[in-house]
Order: sequence, then structure tokens, then C-alpha cells
Amino acid sequence: MPNILVYYNEAEKYAAILKEHGYTSVKTAKTLDEALVHLPGTEIILGWNFPSHLLAQPEAATVQWVQSTGAGIDNLVADRTIPEKIVLTRIVDQFGGMISEYVFAYLLLHCKDIPRLLAAQANREWDKFSPGSLEGKVIGVAGLGSIGVEIVKKARAFHMKVHGLSLSGKNADIVDRHFTAADWKTFVSELDYLVLTLPLTSETRHVINRDILLSMKSNACLVNVGRGQLIVESDLIEVLKEKQHQTAVLDVFEKEPLDKENPLWSLSNVFITPHLSGLSKIEEVGRFFIDNLRRFEQGASLQGIVNRERGY
Amino acid sequence: MPNILVYYNEAEKYAAILKEHGYTSVKTAKTLDEALVHLPGTEIILGWNFPSHLLAQPEAATVQWVQSTGAGIDNLVADRTIPEKIVLTRIVDQFGGMISEYVFAYLLLHCKDIPRLLAAQANREWDKFSPGSLEGKVIGVAGLGSIGVEIVKKARAFHMKVHGLSLSGKNADIVDRHFTAADWKTFVSELDYLVLTLPLTSETRHVINRDILLSMKSNACLVNVGRGQLIVESDLIEVLKEKQHQTAVLDVFEKEPLDKENPLWSLSNVFITPHLSGLSKIEEVGRFFIDNLRRFEQGASLQGIVNRERGY
Repeated sequence: MPNILVYYNEAEKYAAILKEHGYTSVKTAKTLDEALVHLPGTEIILGWNFPSHLLAQPEAATVQWVQSTGAGIDNLVADRTIPEKIVLTRIVDQFGGMISEYVFAYLLLHCKDIPRLLAAQANREWDKFSPGSLEGKVIGVAGLGSIGVEIVKKARAFHMKVHGLSLSGKNADIVDRHFTAADWKTFVSELDYLVLTLPLTSETRHVINRDILLSMKSNACLVNVGRGQLIVESDLIEVLKEKQHQTAVLDVFEKEPLDKENPLWSLSNVFITPHLSGLSKIEEVGRFFIDNLRRFEQGASLQGIVNRERGY
Repeated sequence: MPNILVYYNEAEKYAAILKEHGYTSVKTAKTLDEALVHLPGTEIILGWNFPSHLLAQPEAATVQWVQSTGAGIDNLVADRTIPEKIVLTRIVDQFGGMISEYVFAYLLLHCKDIPRLLAAQANREWDKFSPGSLEGKVIGVAGLGSIGVEIVKKARAFHMKVHGLSLSGKNADIVDRHFTAADWKTFVSELDYLVLTLPLTSETRHVINRDILLSMKSNACLVNVGRGQLIVESDLIEVLKEKQHQTAVLDVFEKEPLDKENPLWSLSNVFITPHLSGLSKIEEVGRFFIDNLRRFEQGASLQGIVNRERGY
């Protein structure tokens, strides 16, 4: 029976799921101090934003595996002090549903001009106009992992043209046109909607800069559900001020929570949401972790193992 | 070469399309008086809200066929003075795309609580919460014609459970559970989302009354893209005041435009749009009509022929 430490603000919920499945050697922590108390003897950590520097300390000598409750793992990967012997896993194949729903909520909000309809209702105005359609529009999905794939599937249901960019060439066959990292400018220039689902790595950091943003169509819409640092935020702010018909839907930011003073808040062509597009459901993450625990006990290969060189 | 009268507020756009396709004997009218001037000799009418009582007058003696630019034909069917020899056709298979986009725009707006996100942005608030999902939710589509079918297809892409009600039993095989007009209460009682795409007939008029609305789940969402008269509007207003967690998305109303004094405007659990979910694109209706014209000239059966007994 492995010793498990859950590090999470609702840690007891995971503890309850684990107990249901017969894992009784479970401790919970919500702060660095609590984590430090419980680390000795811990073999497996399930956590979100675990203070990774602890993993290099003697208290963590028995830790073999850290399972993140999220898909983005750039914080852990960035910490080069984490001993090589510790396996890192992230959640895969769990966020595609939620994030693709978020993406289409905003694509439809944009093309149907729902804000105009809400404003008209507030004024009791019968403001009849001819809304746009997603049909035939070109969506470009940057990042064709499990999240990108689910966005592509929904784009098909809306009869969109689907372009895709993946660094590895993965899933090139599911899109109508495929681009690689060498083609960013061509890729974005033909899009009505650009959706970023890329992991944050040295290769993708600040890949969306002024030059790329100016290559986009003047009425294009950018959706970022990946990581804030994929975009040079100051460039984005500048370009959105210049190109009033471009729109940005941002769920992630260079610094979160977004600063009260950040000019993004007040731009009329920006939709801001507080990094909630891919919030994991505790039951689903729990199921993923239980499955991985069974694999761990059987000595089988874990799901979602992070390649620290690649960065995800 | 048939004599065609176009009755429409942008009639010249249709006239241009017709001329492009070689139909030069085309007149246009925007008012009853203009229609009356051009009726003599007219064989075919393409129009929206054509003053149908004119069709019984001697000036209309040569009219053989009226093509509506819309899908809902209840006004024309209700006019029993229209001579039996005049064929009525409506647009079919053209609105499914636009209307299903509208439906999913609002289903996603509802389940992701976009209004809360817009309000938080206006206040520069980082209001992180866990949005809902359409996945696994039950949608009931009442009316399984070409519009209902397209909604069912998109519901599948969102991994919803799909129930359907059709009067004729048509397309019963495309839904997980099928209901008929005898089962309204059972049908609605299990739904998270009820979408009305029914035609307005004597059988469907006021089918959604207080009794049905009270049979719905307390947090259900009703979307009406059919006709306002499918619902007893005063019952809906009452129930929405009582059941604050029920939501209604209304694109159609008993009387349009919706009166400034109508209490629906100010209910916080109602979304009002000005009958624009299925606005036809002139090019698409034009294409449908040209195709029907070719059939007419060849003596072939027209698309979208209205069965006046059935009511659509």
C-alpha cells in the first residue's frame, strides 16, 4: 500500500476518493509547512502547484512519483532541482471536452455578436441584424494534442475549415492543412480564428509577438487556452488597440491573477476569463490517478509521463 | 420564361440573382399597392409576408406558385382564401446550420455562465469558478425536421444525451429516446435543455403551458426557435418568476416585435433575441429558388411543398 500525499486546496475530496478505492495510507496538505511535515515516507504525491523545491530536500527522499492534477506542467519542468529519479505525470485526455466547450462558447459568442444582443435586451431594443456563422470559416488550432484534437472534432461539426500547427507534426492528418513551427506567419494569415493550445516550452514562449499578430486578418479572433507566456502580452495590447476589429479571448495571462491595473481589462475587443476553461473535475482527475496508481502497483507504464527535455 | 414577382424589402437583390441566371421577366414590390400593380400576369411569387388575401383576387388569376423565403409558413396556411390550385413552397434544409449555431451559442452561454464572466470583467474581478459542461446533459429536441436534425448532430459532437419529440414519428431513429405528442410531460421532465423547432399548427399552438413548464426540472433551460405561439407566453412569464433557476432563451414571441412593456425584457433568467436565429441568407434562398424554378420549368416536383392540411 503506497504512502500518498495529496497537496491541494480541496485535498480531502481526493482523500475520500482514494479511500473509496481502498487506498488508506493517504495524507493531505494545503500549505508548504503541512507538506513538509507529511513528506517523510511519502512515495507518491498528487498535487497542484506543489512547492517543487521540496523535492530536492532530504524529507522527500522516498518520493518516486508526482502526479499533477493539471495538464500544464511548465512550473515543474522548469525546476531543474527535482531529482531525475522522480517520475512526473500530468493529466492527459481529460481537458479536451471542457476546453473545447469553452472555445466554442466564445467562437459562437463572437460570430453571433451575443454582446450586442445582451445590450439590446438591457435597453428593451428589438435590434434585428444578420448574425454571422462559423460555417466555412477557417479555424487554426496551434497544438494538436488531446485538447487540440477535441477542438478539431467540434470544428468539423460546425462545418469549419480546419488548419493546424503542431511542433512535432503530430496529428497532421486530422486537419485540412498542416503547418509546422517554421510556418507561423503563413499559418495565421489565413485564419478567422486562431486557438492556442500549445504547451509552454522554450520553443513556444512568446511565439505570438507583434509580427505574428499583424500578420493576422484585421477581423480575426485569437483564443488562448494554453499559457499566457505563449503571447508577448504587451505586443497583444498594442495591436488590439490599433486593430479594433481583431478580438482576443484570453483565459491565461503572463501573470495570474491578472493585475487590476492591466490595460487588457478595459479593451472592448478583449474577453477575459480567470483561467477556468480547463478546470479539472475532481472525479475525473481522481479516476485518472486511480488508474495510474493501479499501473504503478503492477509496475506498468504510467499515463501522462512528462518528458522533461521536451517540456511536457 | 415565367413571369416572376419578388415581394421583399430587399427585392432587387433577388431580382439581380434571377437575372444572373437568365430570368429576365422579374418585377419587384415592397408594398401591397406595388404588389397589386404587378400581380396581373404573374405566375410565380417569391416573397416574405406576402399579403395573402390578394391571391384570391382577380388580379392574381395567373399565379400558380408562391415560394416563401422562410421556413415557417403558418401565416399563409392560416389564410383559407388562397385558391387550392396555387402551390405553396417553403425553404427547407437551409436553416439548420444557422439555427443550430444559435442554439449552441446559448446552450454554451448558459452552461459556462458567460454573463457572470462578462460582469466580472466589467468589474476587473478575477472571479474563478468551476463552469458546467454540456457533456452528459440531456437535450430534448421537439421537432425533428431539417432544423431539429442539425441540432441533434451538434448535440452529438458535445456528447449530450439526445431525446426527441416529433409529431409524425419522423427521424425517431436519430435520438436516444423518442416521444410523441402524447408524451409531452414525460418528455420534458427529464431534460436539461428543451429546444422547440416545431412548426406552428393547430396541434402545436400553445402546447407549452403552465402544466408542461412546471413538469420541467427546476434548473432546466428552454430555447424557442420555432414560433412564439408554441408557448402560452403569460404562463411562461409566471413560471419564470416562480422558478428563478429555470432559464428561457427566446428568439420568437406571440407578438413581434416584442412590446416594450412586455415583462419578459426584464426577467434576469430570460435571454431575448429579435427573431434572427434563422435569418436566411439571400444567396442561399436564391439558390433554393433557382433550383425550384428549374424543376418548375421541367414539370418536376418542387422542393418544400407545403401540405396545407398538415400545416407545414
